[in-house]
Amino acid sequence: MDIEKVNSMDFGEFVDVFGNVIERCPVVAAAVWSQRPFSDADDLERHFSAFLDALPVAGQEGILRCHPDLAGRELQLGTLTAESQREQSGAGLTRLGADERLQLAELNAQYRARFGFPFVLAARLSDRAALPRELARRLQCPPEQELRTALGEVKKICRLRLADLLGRDPAPR
Amino acid sequence: MDIEKVNSMDFGEFVDVFGNVIERCPVVAAAVWSQRPFSDADDLERHFSAFLDALPVAGQEGILRCHPDLAGRELQLGTLTAESQREQSGAGLTRLGADERLQLAELNAQYRARFGFPFVLAARLSDRAALPRELARRLQCPPEQELRTALGEVKKICRLRLADLLGRDPAPR
Repeated sequence: MDIEKVNSMDFGEFVDVFGNVIERCPVVAAAVWSQRPFSDADDLERHFSAFLDALPVAGQEGILRCHPDLAGRELQLGTLTAESQREQSGAGLTRLGADERLQLAELNAQYRARFGFPFVLAARLSDRAALPRELARRLQCPPEQELRTALGEVKKICRLRLADLLGRDPAPR
Repeated sequence: MDIEKVNSMDFGEFVDVFGNVIERCPVVAAAVWSQRPFSDADDLERHFSAFLDALPVAGQEGILRCHPDLAGRELQLGTLTAESQREQSGAGLTRLGADERLQLAELNAQYRARFGFPFVLAARLSDRAALPRELARRLQCPPEQELRTALGEVKKICRLRLADLLGRDPAPR
């Protein structure tokens, strides 16, 4: 999909296509549409990031709270969004043993209790071995730093999902 | 439901219960949870309103774009949220004749083209006779004024939905 096609969309089409690049927050795409026309894919991505950065802290925490746990209940129940399902499957989280699931469930619960939002990580850039280590590491971080880290992961997920939709290789960062 | 019950909810429960008081924008409830404890129902409502007011203009437009048309395609297709379905039914919009539907479809299209967001109205405070008149009237308003009016309707819808969930009569305003 080229940028002219993106710029030609009405807001309904735009939200249909880009509504889940920020997980379960179609309002972000609906807001970003106000910034068209976009000069290119990077410009589009910058507007998603800028919207997140401009939110008050509670709004940024709200964005995080719309994300599912990694290897959590929704993966078990099959109620993830299509994008999350693909990302968690790709990271091997559908093939965990009972011990690994239990370990992650405990770490996720500790993380939620400590920070008031779920642990968010761009699963496609990680794997089942790295995940519990990273979760345990971030669990020790100061809350303000962890909010910034988590929001950075939201932006990585956004970049990868945009790259899928626009049919291009995401530039490594 | 009393306010102690609300204040005892974790963010998952809170978003499950209040996630659609702002139509299709669970991120708003997810953000408002940061402001707990709430002193009473009015305080809870004020935090929803304050979040909307603090958004940049594009974000407020985004909130509006997450709303369905009144008597529009989604009502025909049965894809409205449960809350919108009840509200549009209650206003008599499921019993329109073909001429009325066509008239509203044309006015809705003009409104979307002029303002870049759909016509939003607290349908429970209106009816099928008043709706096209109000739509035609607001179609003539200056864009900045209309954004404020539309956001005021989002807040009325929020107040009514909160009143339903908390089991109380909404105070007239």
